[in-house]
Amino acid sequence: MSNCIVAQSGGPSSVINATVAGVVKANQMNPIYDHVYGGLNGIEGILQERFVDLTNMSEHENLVLRQTPSSALGSCRYKLKRDNVEDFEKIISIMDKYDIETLFYTGGNDSMDTVAALSEYAAKNKITNHRFVGCPKTVDNDLMVTDHCPGFASAAKFIATTALQCWYDVNVYPASRKEVFILETMGRDAGWLAASACLSGKVDLLIVPEQPFDKEVFLKEVKQIVDEKAKCFVVVSEGAHFADGSYLAAGEAKNDKFGHAILGGAGKALETMILNAEAAPRCKVQDLSTAQRCHATEQSLVDVTESFRLGMSALNRSADKTFTGKMVGVKRRAGEEYDAEFFAVEASKVANYVKNFPVEWLLPEYKGITKEGYAYLEPLIHGNPVILMQEGDGLPEYVQPYYMRGDAALVAKK
Amino acid sequence: MSNCIVAQSGGPSSVINATVAGVVKANQMNPIYDHVYGGLNGIEGILQERFVDLTNMSEHENLVLRQTPSSALGSCRYKLKRDNVEDFEKIISIMDKYDIETLFYTGGNDSMDTVAALSEYAAKNKITNHRFVGCPKTVDNDLMVTDHCPGFASAAKFIATTALQCWYDVNVYPASRKEVFILETMGRDAGWLAASACLSGKVDLLIVPEQPFDKEVFLKEVKQIVDEKAKCFVVVSEGAHFADGSYLAAGEAKNDKFGHAILGGAGKALETMILNAEAAPRCKVQDLSTAQRCHATEQSLVDVTESFRLGMSALNRSADKTFTGKMVGVKRRAGEEYDAEFFAVEASKVANYVKNFPVEWLLPEYKGITKEGYAYLEPLIHGNPVILMQEGDGLPEYVQPYYMRGDAALVAKK
Repeated sequence: MSNCIVAQSGGPSSVINATVAGVVKANQMNPIYDHVYGGLNGIEGILQERFVDLTNMSEHENLVLRQTPSSALGSCRYKLKRDNVEDFEKIISIMDKYDIETLFYTGGNDSMDTVAALSEYAAKNKITNHRFVGCPKTVDNDLMVTDHCPGFASAAKFIATTALQCWYDVNVYPASRKEVFILETMGRDAGWLAASACLSGKVDLLIVPEQPFDKEVFLKEVKQIVDEKAKCFVVVSEGAHFADGSYLAAGEAKNDKFGHAILGGAGKALETMILNAEAAPRCKVQDLSTAQRCHATEQSLVDVTESFRLGMSALNRSADKTFTGKMVGVKRRAGEEYDAEFFAVEASKVANYVKNFPVEWLLPEYKGITKEGYAYLEPLIHGNPVILMQEGDGLPEYVQPYYMRGDAALVAKK
Repeated sequence: MSNCIVAQSGGPSSVINATVAGVVKANQMNPIYDHVYGGLNGIEGILQERFVDLTNMSEHENLVLRQTPSSALGSCRYKLKRDNVEDFEKIISIMDKYDIETLFYTGGNDSMDTVAALSEYAAKNKITNHRFVGCPKTVDNDLMVTDHCPGFASAAKFIATTALQCWYDVNVYPASRKEVFILETMGRDAGWLAASACLSGKVDLLIVPEQPFDKEVFLKEVKQIVDEKAKCFVVVSEGAHFADGSYLAAGEAKNDKFGHAILGGAGKALETMILNAEAAPRCKVQDLSTAQRCHATEQSLVDVTESFRLGMSALNRSADKTFTGKMVGVKRRAGEEYDAEFFAVEASKVANYVKNFPVEWLLPEYKGITKEGYAYLEPLIHGNPVILMQEGDGLPEYVQPYYMRGDAALVAKK
């Protein structure tokens, strides 16, 4: 037998580690590889030969890993460029050296591009003894082909729960206190996370990137709602923008090294508009920021289970020596009760596309989502996993990040 | 028999409704009053004779009420002024009209002042058939005499959990990415909430109002920590200030109608300092804002149980016809295992004072809290109550706010 390696990339989620736990568990149940290595800090750590050995992970560690937020193996934002042949050669030579047949890479768009690029390079160079498999993960839920992405539903559940709770908070004062509450969520290009706040049943106005922002219409709606019931509950994606493409938060937008805009401040921008136009005398903004993607004490059971099983499915599928350049996706089964199965798709068909929230699921004038939108979102947030706690039941138990275990924990360099 | 009324005031918490549930339950178990009324929107609704009848609340509603965040009876920021005799007369006359012997008022500092003012007025005017009892609640934990305030521990638990989870998030990228993460909590005058983040074991620097902020020292510490381990985790109270008393967030501070500064932006102010001084090249701010006081899906079991039992204790104590002008407080029993009992204190000894986080529990140079601080905080966040969920187990079940149940739900005006 040979070995495999699993690594994580991009922004983390509440259940990204469950995929790693699934890869490890599947190999324990049905050994395909001698060793399951974990690559630290994604492609960056693989290029540096920084691996840990996950093969014999205990059942307890596996359970705790599933509920540990963020990327326990560490992440990176290193983008493999197709013209940088050196990197490709180096990765193949390292895989050869450590007898690594398969690389499992969990991540979003950029990670699927890495999987596609590596498998294309291998095919072009007639390298047949290495396989590259993608496992989707992104709270943004914007990957093509897959019904949804592991990680999204837990973030959606936290957002919907927080929206419900904040609605109770903002409404406690008498009607004489007119107020707008604005909840800002992640979502650079896609409105999935913001839309999921509608599951609370409490959202008056929803602003997502899929529907260009019209200031006049928005302020008219705010005014009308505040007049009618004193409080107005608004949810906005960080990536909400005007018809000309300029972001609401434009004043603060900078670009990161992938050329993606670094956003934040859409809620504050709406607050300024509302106060300036005197659409309401008071406004409060809650930006969920980092918490929404790492609040793992409220994972969706559906989400964490799927993430774990997707890792198992990826490992088991890789027994097929031709299984490469693929991403394992989630397909929703037909039928009244929610159920899902896994399937494989070319990673290249996923990479560098964005799946938007369907505009036909958006109600006019920012009034939220249709029943089709609810029907899609609602089953995904079902169920609460049992969370293992630290002594005293005060805080959750988490694994020590593998990238912090020191050099002694690393696989010896060859 | 006669009747009693319970009402809520000030900023809500995750367990303030548990006190109301306790008042109602105690009267069901050991009837002292014919009716337990709920006054809507605090003193404001009492002055308007807007009551609901909670006497026969079902066990299911009682359980759901305990886990419902914010004030189910509605809140107010109406301050009873001692020179406004009209209000006092009106309250007494309304209590007479509805045969209300006792008013239970849950709230913070201002609410305890209301309890003190009403009982003083009654004493001065030889009114002996009405009693006024305060039940403490404030996420800020800044009330005197009581060991801690119901509501604080659940907010502390959410903050510590979120700090732990965000620490996992901020650390995933390689050491080449130097970054400061700033978590901002509530706490206008007291650092209890910010300090509770230290329970995560992950806080590098803690800035609270009790320790004047020294920019030079802070930036030196940040630089040193970032140099040493690439990531620096900072927690700051919204009310952190310089030695001259000016707030970090001073640019944005306004006063509310009680003369309290409306704060926000201490985290952003630190970010600006760090980036300007080039103490780190990257900074991220998470302001927990409203979520920290209403995130009732992660109540501390100790907290919600105490809040419920404190309501029971208040009702049972009020069988004593001389029991007035008191607040029911929490006393920590001596001994190794955490245990608490209730006691009564003059509301006037609580009102208008602030209990600070002990400076002797703060480590020098913003390095967090001592083991005495841990020993105080840690037992309070223990335990997770079973949360009743909506169908499908996606979102928690909450009671419909009583102030939204329409006029038909109100006690008929006399």
